[in-house]
Amino acid sequence: MTEYYDELETRSDEERERSLVEAIRAQLLHARDNTGVFSDSLAGYDCEGFSDLGKLANFPVLRKSSLIEMQKNAPPLGGVSPLERGNIRYVHASPGPIYEACSARADFWRLARALFAAGFRRGDLVHNSFSYHLTPAGAMLDSGCHALGCAVIPGGIGQTELQLQAINDLKPGGYVGTPSFLKIVMEKAAETGMSVDSLKRGLVSGEALPAPLRAQFSEHGIAVLQVYATADLGSIAYETVPDAGLVIDEGIHLEIVRPGSGDPVPSGEVGEVVVTSLNPDYPLIRLATGDMSAFMEDRSECGRTNRRIKGWMGRADQTAKVRGMFIHPEQIGQVVRRHPEIIKARLVIDWIDQRDRMTLRCEVSGRPKGLEGAIAESIRECCRVRGEAELVEPGAIPNDGIVIEDIREYE
Amino acid sequence: MTEYYDELETRSDEERERSLVEAIRAQLLHARDNTGVFSDSLAGYDCEGFSDLGKLANFPVLRKSSLIEMQKNAPPLGGVSPLERGNIRYVHASPGPIYEACSARADFWRLARALFAAGFRRGDLVHNSFSYHLTPAGAMLDSGCHALGCAVIPGGIGQTELQLQAINDLKPGGYVGTPSFLKIVMEKAAETGMSVDSLKRGLVSGEALPAPLRAQFSEHGIAVLQVYATADLGSIAYETVPDAGLVIDEGIHLEIVRPGSGDPVPSGEVGEVVVTSLNPDYPLIRLATGDMSAFMEDRSECGRTNRRIKGWMGRADQTAKVRGMFIHPEQIGQVVRRHPEIIKARLVIDWIDQRDRMTLRCEVSGRPKGLEGAIAESIRECCRVRGEAELVEPGAIPNDGIVIEDIREYE
Repeated sequence: MTEYYDELETRSDEERERSLVEAIRAQLLHARDNTGVFSDSLAGYDCEGFSDLGKLANFPVLRKSSLIEMQKNAPPLGGVSPLERGNIRYVHASPGPIYEACSARADFWRLARALFAAGFRRGDLVHNSFSYHLTPAGAMLDSGCHALGCAVIPGGIGQTELQLQAINDLKPGGYVGTPSFLKIVMEKAAETGMSVDSLKRGLVSGEALPAPLRAQFSEHGIAVLQVYATADLGSIAYETVPDAGLVIDEGIHLEIVRPGSGDPVPSGEVGEVVVTSLNPDYPLIRLATGDMSAFMEDRSECGRTNRRIKGWMGRADQTAKVRGMFIHPEQIGQVVRRHPEIIKARLVIDWIDQRDRMTLRCEVSGRPKGLEGAIAESIRECCRVRGEAELVEPGAIPNDGIVIEDIREYE
Repeated sequence: MTEYYDELETRSDEERERSLVEAIRAQLLHARDNTGVFSDSLAGYDCEGFSDLGKLANFPVLRKSSLIEMQKNAPPLGGVSPLERGNIRYVHASPGPIYEACSARADFWRLARALFAAGFRRGDLVHNSFSYHLTPAGAMLDSGCHALGCAVIPGGIGQTELQLQAINDLKPGGYVGTPSFLKIVMEKAAETGMSVDSLKRGLVSGEALPAPLRAQFSEHGIAVLQVYATADLGSIAYETVPDAGLVIDEGIHLEIVRPGSGDPVPSGEVGEVVVTSLNPDYPLIRLATGDMSAFMEDRSECGRTNRRIKGWMGRADQTAKVRGMFIHPEQIGQVVRRHPEIIKARLVIDWIDQRDRMTLRCEVSGRPKGLEGAIAESIRECCRVRGEAELVEPGAIPNDGIVIEDIREYE
């Protein structure tokens, strides 16, 4: 028998739609009346009269590039949140740079629902291997765990041996983090004789979970499901059954639009995910995520009645997600500017040994000693993810405007 | 006019003593009746009849080495906390390994008082450069900031350029972290043209703050005070005036004892700091910190009436604190065991260019290529702090039993 987090998950379509229409109308009015960004962008739109989900397509889309611009003009948050500083708990930073706020609101990012679907329950001890530094990923999962009544070991990233030691000693039942780090910890355990056998369930995010890797976790007794979440919106959709798409979260409204526009595509077609958040502390009306996906036609066998989307199907722009971090073409530009020897560069992202690998191919005018190492150091500093530099002759990189090339193929 | 965090700070000695006696009696009974550790150690002691602060010296001291042993036998916490898993928010890990729990109790580690004394107020934006990963340092300062109504940028450690970018863009008024990292950020700002001019106040901890460095901060318009806190006890004592000792926190009772014993030394003499915490979620009765200090005779000119202690005066054992992290002889043992070439090793800790530097001097039987790098990597993994390896001839390290040698001299 499937357990549900609450009765919202098994509502009829009509109930859900009625409730969403009401919540979105309230959110439109709240955002228009209490934030700088939306008092401008929603002026002239009939927020009071909003009564049909389909009509949301008439409202303007908010792009991250605009948000970055707004934040530059009105730091820290660009007028997107009605929170006063005394009510803000954290200001997080994502690459861009783009900044996000959260308040003390319980389960601010709504991760508890996805954790519940993955089998996490009150009293569980959970090891969290997302980063807590600058990025909100660590805090996002924590707030979901705390809403459920789970205790958290804030493992963070890196320090594999110390994280493994904590898992070995404290015996957490749950893991949250990237799938690739779970694999690394399991391998390190096998190598050192420490144990990860206490782990029984996992909720992973930030990168692909290929079927063979999920099977490998399963063989070790760890049932792993995925959640799709972003720093600004929190949980967007979550798995309830392996490899059967992701059920949309009950706290948002999700549209799939033609990339770069605000126009919904016919159901089933691939397009950009656009989300309207119902969180009053951080109201985001029609935020374009840059992620591509598509609606699935039927509902999940688990009994949850909300629509499902397919997994992540690429980026609407050249931005790539590597080991949970977004890499933007602007960041590659920063690396290039640091090294006058680089004429032109292209980041190639591959998937080798079930891990993301980044290589910056650099056309160079000279090869001073240590250049490759220095470029690798710049990659780490500018992108927050390790990558290698490969020096090539001038003219070796095609003249096609591509800065980030994603050649990952998951078995 | 000095502002005080609350009226506890200006109580008369009699009021404070009366209130402490009552709180400690309640804590003794609570710990004895609700935790495994203290139901054993306090059996046979007259907790009900506790009526005199001086009599606390008759109760047993709890050493960290015992705590580590207890946690090994009864993971995760060794029976020191009455919290059930559903009420634990975090289990943190400190080197040892030793584990600490915290609940959702507001300002669990009582840092708000020290932050207030350093000038932090509701609505301030604070950049926190302590680590959030495994260790509680980041979370400790956060909970103090949140209790005060400050918003936090969780900067974490490393990633200097990204942290600086956040400070430059978000313009926080306050800094919490180590003094050496504040210096690094200021230097990076000067180098890159980004600005840290928004910073007006700082609360630092984890390492020494030499007078010239404090003066340097002051010249840049940043008024910096220190707090003495530990992972298990939280805030112990805090500066209210530069270079005038540290006022004891109102939420603990502090004794100075002959190192290794539980016997108080005469007032003014140097000894080991032993603390009794009044936090019911994590009752620690007479925990020996391993830190050396001494009571000061008179009270602070700021008007706070609690006793003061001198700053940190070394360790009662060979454990050293480097860039905010404790280094134990056991960790050096771990490094040595990883490299069969090492015959004997001694960690030398120095203070160069206003930063802690660690060098592991290793007598080696052979010098395979890359050994120094591999040892440095092991130091980082076992100690969580970077250090260099220096290979020396067999017999070069004196035969005096010293594993960690602290030769730091602060200008």
